[in-house]
Amino acid sequence: MVDSLARAAGPEAVTAVVNVGDDLELLGLRISPDIDTVLYSLARLLDEERGWGVRDETYSARAITERLGGETWFTLGDRDIGLHLVRTEALHRGEPLSAVTRRLARALGVGLELLPATDDEQRTFLRTDAGELDFQTWFVRRHHADRVLAVDVRGEARPAPGVLEAIRGAEHVVIAPSNPFVSIGPILAVEGVRDALAERRVAAVSPIVGGEAIRGPLGEMLEALGFERSAKGVADHYGRLIDVFVVDETDADLAPAIPGAVVAPTVMVDPGRREEVGRAVLEVLG
Amino acid sequence: MVDSLARAAGPEAVTAVVNVGDDLELLGLRISPDIDTVLYSLARLLDEERGWGVRDETYSARAITERLGGETWFTLGDRDIGLHLVRTEALHRGEPLSAVTRRLARALGVGLELLPATDDEQRTFLRTDAGELDFQTWFVRRHHADRVLAVDVRGEARPAPGVLEAIRGAEHVVIAPSNPFVSIGPILAVEGVRDALAERRVAAVSPIVGGEAIRGPLGEMLEALGFERSAKGVADHYGRLIDVFVVDETDADLAPAIPGAVVAPTVMVDPGRREEVGRAVLEVLG
Repeated sequence: MVDSLARAAGPEAVTAVVNVGDDLELLGLRISPDIDTVLYSLARLLDEERGWGVRDETYSARAITERLGGETWFTLGDRDIGLHLVRTEALHRGEPLSAVTRRLARALGVGLELLPATDDEQRTFLRTDAGELDFQTWFVRRHHADRVLAVDVRGEARPAPGVLEAIRGAEHVVIAPSNPFVSIGPILAVEGVRDALAERRVAAVSPIVGGEAIRGPLGEMLEALGFERSAKGVADHYGRLIDVFVVDETDADLAPAIPGAVVAPTVMVDPGRREEVGRAVLEVLG
Repeated sequence: MVDSLARAAGPEAVTAVVNVGDDLELLGLRISPDIDTVLYSLARLLDEERGWGVRDETYSARAITERLGGETWFTLGDRDIGLHLVRTEALHRGEPLSAVTRRLARALGVGLELLPATDDEQRTFLRTDAGELDFQTWFVRRHHADRVLAVDVRGEARPAPGVLEAIRGAEHVVIAPSNPFVSIGPILAVEGVRDALAERRVAAVSPIVGGEAIRGPLGEMLEALGFERSAKGVADHYGRLIDVFVVDETDADLAPAIPGAVVAPTVMVDPGRREEVGRAVLEVLG
């Protein structure tokens, strides 16, 4: 979605506020999967087929760490590790995540402003029928097979510099079609973010199309958490936080039942369609 | 040399005490170049042509760290990084270097005992005509082009568990044909090592053959530090520390002038010759 809006409006017109609740430490490396996916996508380095990691990646380090008994359940490619090394070293030197991220984005030729929601340690945990799990353990290590009973975002997280200013100053505020519980929820849990959003006309793009998430286990999670497994379930979850809800053309028949619903093409797994989707979304936002 | 003796006597008969004075931290990784070279060599992973690093290595991480402005003067291959990640994480967890090294060696199928001289922080600095430089800055970053005026090994280094016991209990104590100032010197600077050696019959294998080091800048360093640029210069430097000095057949004519000199084939850059050299050295030690 960030890429779509950047292609439609020009990257310099976009500020992306990104979730860090699913960040992790592995092999001493600080990994920020959501930031990295946006970075790689905008730098045209993303493995688009998988939706994560670097394309044409090598896995030499992983082969050795595995042989040496290091943890390998979270796949780290060599290029990916190169980025994590630079970030981790900078964080250990005391550079805030937002400053490191800005540096990495510039070095990779990313033209838009990319902000972690917070520079503080914020972590998403899931209460499941297999006990409490941190996000990546639930999602990657256990293949999101455990039924989610509740989402618990932890850490006193203050907004990173520029986050509230971006919300207050933007022409359009758009919540991306990500998982509202585990990807958007942690951003909303950052101090001041809900209040800043309450002052603005906020649009969300539905992450559910035809009853299924484009990627990930959102369908099951909606049901498990007591919402309808549909675009309407997501709109119900957001409630009065949002003013406009963009549903995909596939779900046009659901629109009359959703307050503030507008219809636009939103599916853009194919990068070739992203500019078109970005333009359509900006158009329905008026 | 370690590999030669392991091939000749069987790996379980050998304990190698290895220099850590030229260890470094880079991109947050703890790198132990001497330990790694021995590990890679014995695990048959070494790039024998270069004499360091892993063979058939990839450099994907380096390409990204370079793009992101990370330090790249010390070449880290991807497999190498995999090992450094496991070691660094273990050290941060509080595992001593000797314990990590033992684990890595076992995981790589290395049968001999491989001990860092110390688990403490010990670092080699060089006073040069370009000022004081840490070892790797002098050796790798500045291509050992600066004239060495003195070697300064820093850090209160206690022997790692097993080091003094190995010296006291070994049938033969052999100082490998490494640079006596920057590779052997830091081991000798570890508390108790000189005293333990004084109690034993100690042999050294000459790192100089025909006036030149097989690898590295020892020839220049001998002259700069006031010694003869020859096997005799090395023997003079060791002085009464050693009882037997093994010179290569090429230098047989120097033997009469060197106290305790014996002659054996010692050149073994070609791995195929290592067992033969190991046997010959053990034979002259009697």
